[in-house]
Amino acid sequence: MVDVKVHEVGTRDGLQSVADFVPTAVKQAWIAKEFAAGVGEIEVCSFVPVKLIPQFADAGEVVAHALGLEGLTVAALVPNLKGAERALQLGVHKINYVISVSESHNQANVRRSTEESAVDFERIVAQCREAPPRGRPIVVGGLSTAMGCTIEGKVAEERVRALALRLVAAGADELILADTVGYGDPAAVRRLFGAVKSDVGDVPITAHFHDTRGLGLANVVAALDVGVRAFDASLAGLGGCPYAPGASGNICTEDLVFLLESMGLKTGIDLERLIAVRTMVCANLGDQPYHGTIAQAGLPKGFRGAVAA
Amino acid sequence: MVDVKVHEVGTRDGLQSVADFVPTAVKQAWIAKEFAAGVGEIEVCSFVPVKLIPQFADAGEVVAHALGLEGLTVAALVPNLKGAERALQLGVHKINYVISVSESHNQANVRRSTEESAVDFERIVAQCREAPPRGRPIVVGGLSTAMGCTIEGKVAEERVRALALRLVAAGADELILADTVGYGDPAAVRRLFGAVKSDVGDVPITAHFHDTRGLGLANVVAALDVGVRAFDASLAGLGGCPYAPGASGNICTEDLVFLLESMGLKTGIDLERLIAVRTMVCANLGDQPYHGTIAQAGLPKGFRGAVAA
Repeated sequence: MVDVKVHEVGTRDGLQSVADFVPTAVKQAWIAKEFAAGVGEIEVCSFVPVKLIPQFADAGEVVAHALGLEGLTVAALVPNLKGAERALQLGVHKINYVISVSESHNQANVRRSTEESAVDFERIVAQCREAPPRGRPIVVGGLSTAMGCTIEGKVAEERVRALALRLVAAGADELILADTVGYGDPAAVRRLFGAVKSDVGDVPITAHFHDTRGLGLANVVAALDVGVRAFDASLAGLGGCPYAPGASGNICTEDLVFLLESMGLKTGIDLERLIAVRTMVCANLGDQPYHGTIAQAGLPKGFRGAVAA
Repeated sequence: MVDVKVHEVGTRDGLQSVADFVPTAVKQAWIAKEFAAGVGEIEVCSFVPVKLIPQFADAGEVVAHALGLEGLTVAALVPNLKGAERALQLGVHKINYVISVSESHNQANVRRSTEESAVDFERIVAQCREAPPRGRPIVVGGLSTAMGCTIEGKVAEERVRALALRLVAAGADELILADTVGYGDPAAVRRLFGAVKSDVGDVPITAHFHDTRGLGLANVVAALDVGVRAFDASLAGLGGCPYAPGASGNICTEDLVFLLESMGLKTGIDLERLIAVRTMVCANLGDQPYHGTIAQAGLPKGFRGAVAA
């Protein structure tokens, strides 16, 4: 049994900021090896127009391979109705649909209002329920810029709560609250996640934190405090923020696993094997802004993760 | 009024791992500018034998200058009785006496048993009370390797509690609990600091965390939870661990201040001025393992620290 779920998103959030096309075989090896290390859910790609992000031109092959790994939950990011249709055709297990809480960010990201995106989500839920070709996926309502926005600055908690409730009412099976640009702090995390949790009851919430300003793992501790038990993370912290050169991207998967296992929370992940996957990925991706501490510092003397114990 | 005290230790814990001698004027400028940015307490040097750490050969001049900055609490690290005598002669405000909870680490560090170091502490307290030449300083009992040790691995919580109680009984005005090599995690921090706090009552406790394995700020959040309100930190995270090349040293002062102010906890420190001090220090110290995120990522849009507001 696992106490806390760790979802790998480096294959999506990380790779979308890697300029050179990464060979399909490397992506597939990354996914297979990380699954073998114990990671149970991976966001393997994004169904955005290939013209916008050529990195995901091979999404079909990546998804097909991932679906062959028995026991892995294959998730994909979906920015709009068209992406959802493609995801349904390919048969991913989980559709992570993303709306920016910040109106300006949503306009910049998907060129429509938050309201239009919310209406699209209702259509996606309907499609997922109307006998999709390869079975009904889990539909996740993702709220990005939930803790702040590079364009608007502060994002009102009331707005996040209202949008979360709306997506749940529209049929979201789960929610993701994303601090897309690293504006969150532990006090704000406790307030926001605590409030949304009490609003939505049993609907599982995944926290998606970026480490842009170094508070990523501190925010994880705060989220754990209010009962969050699922986290997105990116191997080697891949995925720097385009608005802050040199700054970190997502929280680093191996550091997150180290934090959780150190605290006695089982993740089901073998940390040494996970670090070996990091090594393989870095070797294949070349010069990128890699982050993370535990791979460099090494495990402390006497450390026993849940798997190794 | 300040909610949380931030103590700069880079001028001691940081500089002790800088091989080349840093000019006295640079050390003095660092201290003066950081005090001007709002840092109220600085550990300005270590009274170790100059033969062991030549970096502190100018401790006398550094202390004399720091004592001229009205309002600054001038602290110094003291490993033994002889160091304490020198500190008393120079008139520092605070004597941070350090004992390693790990027997092997204490032997390696000061070549005596923990018991012998504890007896020395009793003598130091006695000297501080017997009309020292320049007034009675605050005497702090510091427990290093309180959360783990590179030699012994796990350190028993009972041992830390017993030693803390012993130092308080011997007359310690305050305590420092130090995770010298970054073995702590938020769950262990809550347990240990919570237990020692309930043991020692009103005696103030400073947390001294290293970020060796990336958990430094997460540990700060845990310590805040159990009521700790004073933290050591090092500007630019200066002070890498000699046992983990490339790994971080102390938690980074400017990131700590960013964390606290983001959470609405007043530090009295102007973060922009603090970052300017970092820039000055890095320019003068040359090629060192600098760490820290906020100086690189920049403050988030709309950020108002306690001072700037």
